[in-house]
Parts: sequence; C-alpha cells; structure tokens
Amino acid sequence: MSFQDKLEQYSKIVNERLNNHLMPGKHFGPPERLSDAMRHAVIGSGKRIRPFIIMESAKIFGVNPHRSADVASAVECLHSYSLVHDDLPAMDDDDMRRGKPSCHKAFDEATAILAGDALQSLAFEILARPGSDADPAIRSQLVLEMATAAGWAGMAGGQMMDIELTNHPKKIKLALIQRIHAMKTGAVLEFSAVAGPIIAKAAEDHIHRFREYGKLVGLAFQAADDLLDVTGDSEHLGKRTGKDEISGKPSIVARAGLEKTQKYVNDLEQAAIDLIVPYGTAADDLIEATRFICRREK
Amino acid sequence: MSFQDKLEQYSKIVNERLNNHLMPGKHFGPPERLSDAMRHAVIGSGKRIRPFIIMESAKIFGVNPHRSADVASAVECLHSYSLVHDDLPAMDDDDMRRGKPSCHKAFDEATAILAGDALQSLAFEILARPGSDADPAIRSQLVLEMATAAGWAGMAGGQMMDIELTNHPKKIKLALIQRIHAMKTGAVLEFSAVAGPIIAKAAEDHIHRFREYGKLVGLAFQAADDLLDVTGDSEHLGKRTGKDEISGKPSIVARAGLEKTQKYVNDLEQAAIDLIVPYGTAADDLIEATRFICRREK
Repeated sequence: MSFQDKLEQYSKIVNERLNNHLMPGKHFGPPERLSDAMRHAVIGSGKRIRPFIIMESAKIFGVNPHRSADVASAVECLHSYSLVHDDLPAMDDDDMRRGKPSCHKAFDEATAILAGDALQSLAFEILARPGSDADPAIRSQLVLEMATAAGWAGMAGGQMMDIELTNHPKKIKLALIQRIHAMKTGAVLEFSAVAGPIIAKAAEDHIHRFREYGKLVGLAFQAADDLLDVTGDSEHLGKRTGKDEISGKPSIVARAGLEKTQKYVNDLEQAAIDLIVPYGTAADDLIEATRFICRREK
Repeated sequence: MSFQDKLEQYSKIVNERLNNHLMPGKHFGPPERLSDAMRHAVIGSGKRIRPFIIMESAKIFGVNPHRSADVASAVECLHSYSLVHDDLPAMDDDDMRRGKPSCHKAFDEATAILAGDALQSLAFEILARPGSDADPAIRSQLVLEMATAAGWAGMAGGQMMDIELTNHPKKIKLALIQRIHAMKTGAVLEFSAVAGPIIAKAAEDHIHRFREYGKLVGLAFQAADDLLDVTGDSEHLGKRTGKDEISGKPSIVARAGLEKTQKYVNDLEQAAIDLIVPYGTAADDLIEATRFICRREK
C-alpha cells in the first residue's frame, strides 16, 4: 500500500471515530448549536497528519491502528480547537479554514470560543476513557503529555508569543522564531510522536528517540508552513496566503529568505528521518509521512 | 475550628499550591504576559468553594486536605478559565471579576482567550501529574470526570444554552433553566463533590450519594446567584449586579419571582444536607459549607 493510500485509510478510521465521538445523540445534553460548531471544526477535510503520526508510530511497535485511533481522535480534537481559537478576530482573524468558513464565520464568536473550549475538554475526555487504552497508567501518562503540550509552555504559549511578536520584526531572532515554532506547533507534534511508543509500552529510549523526532518534525512542519504562505495559492490551501507578510507575523522565510528556509526544512527532514531509519522497513511509511510534511504543497 | 476558619485554612493551602503551580520560573517557556494573565485570573480573592468541597468531602473519608489540594487546585484552574472566557465581550461582556478588572480588561482579548485555554490545559496537567494522586487509575478517573463536567454536555454546553436563551424570555421554562444551571454550574460542583470519595477510593454508593449531593448544591448555587444578582450590591460582590434583568439572561428569579426562588433554594439546601447527614459529625463542616453556599451574601 502506498503512503497516500495509507494516509487515506487511517483518515477514514479516525474520521469514523471522530464522527462517533461527536455524535450528539450519543450524549444527553449538548446543545445542538454547540455540537454543530464542534463538528464543523473537526469533521471534514483536515489532512489528519497528527493522527497519522500517532497511529503509524504505534504500528512500528506492533499496535494495530484501530487500537490507537481514539488517542489519534483526541489529538485531532485538540488541534481543531486550536485552529478555531487562532482564527478568532481577536487572534489571527481568519475567515477561511480547511476550505470552509472558519467557525466564528459559520456561527459566531461566542459559539466559536465555546466550541474550541469544549473540543479541548473532549480531547481529554477521550484520552481518559477506558476505551482509549486498557491501562489507566497509560491513559494518565497520555493526558499529562497532551496537557503539557497544549498549555502555557506549549501550544497556547507559542500562540501568545506569535501574537506578541507580530509587527515587531526587529525583535525577532531566528532562535526566537524557532522557539515559537517549537511551542506553537512542535509540542503537539512531539506529543503525537511519543504517543505511539507510549501506547505500545516501549522502553524509555524509544520514547526519547520519538520525542526528538517529533521536535524536528514540528520545526519542519511550521517552516514548511511559512514557505507555503509565500509560495502556495489560497484555493489549493483552503486558507488565505501571503498573510504572514501582510500581518507582520514571525516567519522563518521573512527572517532567513526562501532559499535558506528551504535548506533548513531539508536539513530537519533528513535529521528526523535519520532518527527512525533504525526501525527498518517498519518505519518506511513514517519516513514517507515525514517527507510529505516537509514537501507538502497544501 | 469554625467553618469560616476552616474555609480560610483550606483557601490558604490551595492558594499556596496554586502559586506553586503557576510559578513561571518553575517551567521553561511560558511567555510572561500569558503567565501574568493566568495568575491574574486565578490568584487572589476567589472564595475557593469548589476546592473546599473537594478537600472536605475527601476528609470525611479520612483524606488529609494536603493530599487532595492538587485536585482542588485543578478545579480552581478550570473554574477560573470559565470565568475568563465567560467575561469576554463576545460572551457576557463583564468588565469586573472578583473585585478586579476582568482578564481581557487587564490585558486584552487575545491574551484572555489564551489564558483561559492554558488554564484549562493546566487543570488537566495538574490532575494527571503523579503528584496529584499516587494511583494512575484515580488520576485518569478524575480526568474523565472533570473533562465530562467541563465539556459540551457540562459547563461549556450550559454556557452555550445560557447565551442562546438570553433575550428569549418566552422560551424559558423553569425545567430548562434548571437544565442550564445543572450543566453550567452543577456539573463542576458535582465533580467537586465526587472527587473526595474518588480520591479516598470510597465504595460506589458513597460516590453516588456525593454525586446527588453535588447536583443539588449546583442547582442551589446558581439559584442563589440569581437571587444575589437582584438583592446583592456590586461593591460587595466584586462584579456587576442587576445584570440578568438588563441582559435578559435566563434567571430563576425572573421566571419564578423572589419568594419562590428563596423557597426553592431552601428546599435544595435541605435535600443536599439530608444526603450527608448520615456521615455524622464528620460532615458538620460540609453541612456548614452547604448552608454558606445557599445563604451567601456575596
């Protein structure tokens, strides 16, 4: 099976799982408007990169993708919550997301804030349910990893710094942009990479190796995003492009130029792949995924 | 020791713990503006009712309050996040909270959204840390209970319905207001009530009893809040009063009148107390706390 076929196959598993988790009829109580907004944000056209990394990393250690699919769904809920809040007028003010109106455009600001909030809660709810993993020690380890990745020293902190440094180009050193990227994007990709060996109860040195891999992929992912903002077209991407320059966002490209950024992404790609090559052919599809992340055109 | 002295003593324990959890120097990474906003929201003058219920419920089953203080800190982070987001202009648009400018007034909207987001993550991070409870099964059970209470069928869902029904007084039946209160306020109070017996590994029938107790206290808490909105003064409360009527918020008082609402609160108080009377003198302070919640003047 080609990598693209596998990405699609895993997406299908995760989408079914997400549909199931987000089916309002299954839970008494959630108001329709809120569950509609949550589904709007989660269900649909996302590439499901983070779920793929979780499911494929776990598979390297022999875990069936159906068994890691709940953890993969949880990270997609977390990621979708962050997109909903990042798009808000007070934040990045984006009208389009994943080829659709962003959540506050399709609904309203209050609904979008609450949908993001409830998606964050749902991510932890899914992780903590006995169904996500039979071992409560694994469940609480995953919650701790994900909460740390999501919080003030991770995703939320990175978004704060991103906003603070917007329109202050002089303040921005390359190391600072890297730190923002590591927090804003890297932390959750790092979680996705370590989740696999954690679910598989792999030894600490494997977890360490996948943590390093996740860090590198996170940096590459965001730098590739900065490249795409300059070189991509918005119809293809499903969101506005050229926005970093207009808004004065911290961007590797703006700081280092296209050529150096491309080399930086290539180097990160190679370093990340080197870390998983020792797993042999079992790592082939994760290597493909790494290339896909670094070379994607949307 | 009087109930008031004990409330103060527990507050002190929780405040120290919160100070510790929110000390930026202890974590590498969080940007100062974000941790300042989080501290603004959490540290200070809150009554710490939810932490008290957790610590005192646990104590009834023999758990030292110092041992339940992390779980109590987590619920206060969750509660504070909800206040920060509820106060946003797109939501209830409140300028004052706990006698201080609300978070988006003291900082700005983007910072307040992120501070709320990061406080929610921190709540789960604290719960999932080995320090909160030695048994990972307890930790993941607490995460599951709190995430369910916080999410679409709990606090966030209740806030959504509260907003949806604002200015639609004709739609509001008493049962619907009760359902909103049960979700918006009751779910987290229910979590606070069951957390004690869960930490203590008490038998299922105790957990069930405390769940019922928490539900009743949640309804009483919000109805007492509706009463205070009419009868309280804003200087005393540290937030605006008379706002429900101005804003057309779903309110028990608006629906049933002052006298009937007072009787409703009294009945809930008695029913809640009846559930914990069987624990004898060990429950005396929780009974006092129940009375305090139902009869409070701020």
